[in-house]
Amino acid sequence: MDIARRLLEGDVRALARAIRLLEDHDPAAEAVLREVRGRAGAAHVVGVTGAPGSGKSTICDQLISRWRAAGHRVGVIAVDPSSPFSGGAILGDRVRMQRHTGDDGVYIRSMAARGHLGGLASAAREAIRLIDASGRDRCLVETVGVGQSELEVMETVDTTVVVTTPVSGDSVQILKAGILEIADVFVVNKADIPGASKVARELRDLTRHVRGTSAWTPPVILTTGTSGDGVDDLLDAVERHHETIASNGELQQRRRDRLQAEIEAIVVERAAERARRELEEGTMGAELSGDLRGIDPYAIADRILNAHASDIP
Amino acid sequence: MDIARRLLEGDVRALARAIRLLEDHDPAAEAVLREVRGRAGAAHVVGVTGAPGSGKSTICDQLISRWRAAGHRVGVIAVDPSSPFSGGAILGDRVRMQRHTGDDGVYIRSMAARGHLGGLASAAREAIRLIDASGRDRCLVETVGVGQSELEVMETVDTTVVVTTPVSGDSVQILKAGILEIADVFVVNKADIPGASKVARELRDLTRHVRGTSAWTPPVILTTGTSGDGVDDLLDAVERHHETIASNGELQQRRRDRLQAEIEAIVVERAAERARRELEEGTMGAELSGDLRGIDPYAIADRILNAHASDIP
Repeated sequence: MDIARRLLEGDVRALARAIRLLEDHDPAAEAVLREVRGRAGAAHVVGVTGAPGSGKSTICDQLISRWRAAGHRVGVIAVDPSSPFSGGAILGDRVRMQRHTGDDGVYIRSMAARGHLGGLASAAREAIRLIDASGRDRCLVETVGVGQSELEVMETVDTTVVVTTPVSGDSVQILKAGILEIADVFVVNKADIPGASKVARELRDLTRHVRGTSAWTPPVILTTGTSGDGVDDLLDAVERHHETIASNGELQQRRRDRLQAEIEAIVVERAAERARRELEEGTMGAELSGDLRGIDPYAIADRILNAHASDIP
Repeated sequence: MDIARRLLEGDVRALARAIRLLEDHDPAAEAVLREVRGRAGAAHVVGVTGAPGSGKSTICDQLISRWRAAGHRVGVIAVDPSSPFSGGAILGDRVRMQRHTGDDGVYIRSMAARGHLGGLASAAREAIRLIDASGRDRCLVETVGVGQSELEVMETVDTTVVVTTPVSGDSVQILKAGILEIADVFVVNKADIPGASKVARELRDLTRHVRGTSAWTPPVILTTGTSGDGVDDLLDAVERHHETIASNGELQQRRRDRLQAEIEAIVVERAAERARRELEEGTMGAELSGDLRGIDPYAIADRILNAHASDIP
């Protein structure tokens, strides 16, 4: 297929086209994914999350610049669960990242929750795969907020960066959302504001408490996104995390777990589709039209589940 | 089976035993359900929900007394999503209903969310079926609070009674939880408190607005649970609702929808189980151990879903 071939050659328009097919739930997207899947897996996928206003976009912008300076090709997925699909437009304060749009080595795409039947995390995962297969070796996933959707999106990345600030309430919010367990690197941004080192100290105590036995203790990095102070340390921590989990087998294990969860989700979604189709249009639907009293839902469920695909119209 | 036979004869110990099997996820519960299912479907299932402190238990107590006086046999499920299984003990202010425990015509059971893999609503639905099959023609389901679990439990009943009070904040809370759409009868309890008629008026306006085209407009009944004032009107409204939906086909439709949703839920749960088993212990799990890059999750999902049960170890 032409799109797949051009995508594998790194053509940015083919990449954009393939992600658009994905967004539109076009069956062609699945075909493209099937063709390019074997070529994905080389990119280091980094997620950046944190409360609105914590300066995530500035941090992302700084990471992108440094990666580009080191010769990496970068893909960015900006996830906004509250907005409709923007078809590649940059939202709100993400305008800061826009300065990279003249650079073919940086591909930026916004994604939103609405319209994703299989969930935002699943759409983001497929988009990451396409970016990865297109030869971009760094993929950045930025989310707004720290809700359930964002946590699910973060489960699709290799390295999760959680951005907090000394501004009151932020660190409490992080703990409330249970994000402590998924953070691989903590950033205390706006380090020029009083209280930054206190927040950093608290986070260090917490991480020791929560992940005492793991091979990787999440470092806490102080940054000032606007000046770029501390971003080199952040980049260093992100790369060290990747090297650590790649060498101790954890990266492989994470990707395996992720693939397993993905397969389970597809099985569940297709089973539900089959049940709905069969009960609404199929012969089993007719059984639900008369006296319902003798009906055993477990028996019907087993018949639906154990029918071969070919038995079902 | 002995338990099933004795349950169908109305033996209260057999009923309690069967519900206990259900709680314990004992495979014998499914066998009992299969045997008695054809005999369920005659009971009128009434749900009573509302914020804590609204006087639900007092209202339930009054309904039970009136049903008993009219010769009905009654089953009660008291649902408390925040508590562990209490094995039939009565919780908190439900102690009021306890005075019926000497009466063999009233069976009262507490249920809690914890430990229910398939969800509280599914457990409550099965317990209702057992109570129904045991010859009790009135089944009362009382919930604490108006959260998501409670809404799901209310979807398993024929007639939903929503209890509110003139105490500040209650009516707002009901609207917030989106319970307006599922209420068949509204009760403004503690009608002796100033403001009751104002709350009733607001609810009447709202119900006209929301359910203007339905054959049934939810009536708003003023009660004083402690004195029993208005409870006869409530009972009358509950019975009229049942007659209305039984005669216009809505009851049959509700039960059909409910059964369909139940079958879908069972299909999804069993499909997920099969995927987990196959990926963790089966041959497909081995495919996830090497290089993951060529793996197509959609293809594996289809193979799992389309395997006959007999193909799977």
